Amino acid sequence: MRILVIGAAGMIGRKLVHALLQAGTVNGKPIRYLTLADIVAPERPDFDGEIETIASDLSRPGAAKRLISLRPDIIFHLAAVVSGEAEADFEKGYRVNLDGTLSLFEAIRHEGMERPYTPRVVFTSSIVVFGEPLPPIISDTHCVTPLTSYGTQKAIGELLLADYSRKGILDGIGIRLPTISIRPGKPNRAASGFFSSILREPLIGEEAILPVSETVRHWFASPRAATRFLLHAAEIDTRSLGHLRTITMPGLSATVGDQIEALRRVAGDGATQLIRREPNEAIASIIAGWPQGFDTRRAEALGFQGEASFEEIIRVHIEDELGNRIREHA
Amino acid sequence: MRILVIGAAGMIGRKLVHALLQAGTVNGKPIRYLTLADIVAPERPDFDGEIETIASDLSRPGAAKRLISLRPDIIFHLAAVVSGEAEADFEKGYRVNLDGTLSLFEAIRHEGMERPYTPRVVFTSSIVVFGEPLPPIISDTHCVTPLTSYGTQKAIGELLLADYSRKGILDGIGIRLPTISIRPGKPNRAASGFFSSILREPLIGEEAILPVSETVRHWFASPRAATRFLLHAAEIDTRSLGHLRTITMPGLSATVGDQIEALRRVAGDGATQLIRREPNEAIASIIAGWPQGFDTRRAEALGFQGEASFEEIIRVHIEDELGNRIREHA
Repeated sequence: MRILVIGAAGMIGRKLVHALLQAGTVNGKPIRYLTLADIVAPERPDFDGEIETIASDLSRPGAAKRLISLRPDIIFHLAAVVSGEAEADFEKGYRVNLDGTLSLFEAIRHEGMERPYTPRVVFTSSIVVFGEPLPPIISDTHCVTPLTSYGTQKAIGELLLADYSRKGILDGIGIRLPTISIRPGKPNRAASGFFSSILREPLIGEEAILPVSETVRHWFASPRAATRFLLHAAEIDTRSLGHLRTITMPGLSATVGDQIEALRRVAGDGATQLIRREPNEAIASIIAGWPQGFDTRRAEALGFQGEASFEEIIRVHIEDELGNRIREHA
Repeated sequence: MRILVIGAAGMIGRKLVHALLQAGTVNGKPIRYLTLADIVAPERPDFDGEIETIASDLSRPGAAKRLISLRPDIIFHLAAVVSGEAEADFEKGYRVNLDGTLSLFEAIRHEGMERPYTPRVVFTSSIVVFGEPLPPIISDTHCVTPLTSYGTQKAIGELLLADYSRKGILDGIGIRLPTISIRPGKPNRAASGFFSSILREPLIGEEAILPVSETVRHWFASPRAATRFLLHAAEIDTRSLGHLRTITMPGLSATVGDQIEALRRVAGDGATQLIRREPNEAIASIIAGWPQGFDTRRAEALGFQGEASFEEIIRVHIEDELGNRIREHA
């Protein structure tokens, strides 16, 4: 079995590669060849089989063709210019997120014209395809109304994935990831950053800033759950998807207050006291248009599983990122 | 006021140009310049102002730039490879319907980078963006699930229109047209053809074939209503659209039985006796996945008006296409 991961150097990409190597198989078939591509060449992990790491910009002529000429059985397409950058640099966002995806699908179509070839393509979309007007609980049949160019490009990718699948060119499955919490790493300036930092920083004894009210509600999954979704998407029988090739992944609908209470239960009052309230109107108004909850019975029936509580999400972070240790508080 | 009609040689395009010339103004401003473009140069109508007819393939390099360099105030974008052809010729469908639309929007963006320019863009979409699974009544917030490449390309056009509008590059409004009945002209092989021919042929004393049951229900508007929708879309205040830039147009939900009964009332039993039942399983199964009705309160609140009965639709055809005369039947 040959696997291609595009976007292998990103946070989820690295975790996916790690999980693939740990599993060693997909649907019981051993992974023998692994190609890791990203805009910069990804790190080369220890692997018994054949491995290749490639610096590749999908939107450049010939780049997709080169990756597809290896005829991978499974393609994880995680590569994207992220939300803030796609909004600031309109041309770059469309070039990478739209042209890049279209180039990939076209390379697959051309490869299949030479000899039959219908790879499984796992495409990561995002709940940011949804925007106002939104009901409190959003189903898979609710219209997509992206309020960013990034969300627009992901929504277009979903449509292309469905049409190329319908035509038998590829065997696509799109998964809309919840907001990932707790993101490992340093605080960043993304509007959603505080959803991770108010937990991540106190767990290592550092202060974090909360810019919104504790009543703000949003939709979350851990990096470990996101990785599990990707692996499961590579394995399931796509015939059960019908025409709806993209599925909103299960998540946890939680308020900031729920997050803080979970932190208190796991790490004590000392941890929660490190959260400093600094209301920020700009961030609050961006967040106000975001989804609060989804009906994901369809994903659950297909075997996708999210987290049941924010304590579980915090414990995943402590196990996976902190070597199972948290800092003691006074 | 300068107006550009792309797709001016098509059935709706020609009717739109005729209606524009009859009105003479848009929002009270006189139409002084008219550019008519299509894949073949459209006919040149009588017009007091300046008129240009251009053979232009939007998907060719430089074609969109040339049309936009005239800086039209209003652009009607009706050009498309139709459903059957886009399905049969995958590359051509994507080239014209996706690349062509994107080229147009990009040409507008580049024109606006030189000097401020934000034209009104009226984009024709279609109810074929919807496909199974469908509720009996479809609202503007129902997800799009196109079951054809044409529907996919229209759905992508809607997303691009919304994003380019949100960014202030253009002032877009998308209108999803119902199935047009009665289409003038000769019978064709489109799956939907019988929805027009079972009325059009008997009105001129010719036989028509009905391939489905009389209980089949679908969503209709006359060519005259479609033209009215386009003109109204050019005039309304788009600020009231919010983030939902595309609107499903009002139509008439009617069964084939309703169509035949209206024909009987307008043209008598002699006309309905010219309809020959020839059940066709292939056509019936295609039609089975089509929408049956829409909730168009939003469009109506914005001032879009469809027909109230199939008799009205038939009378429109008799007035506009048959010089107000129908053939007498025994």
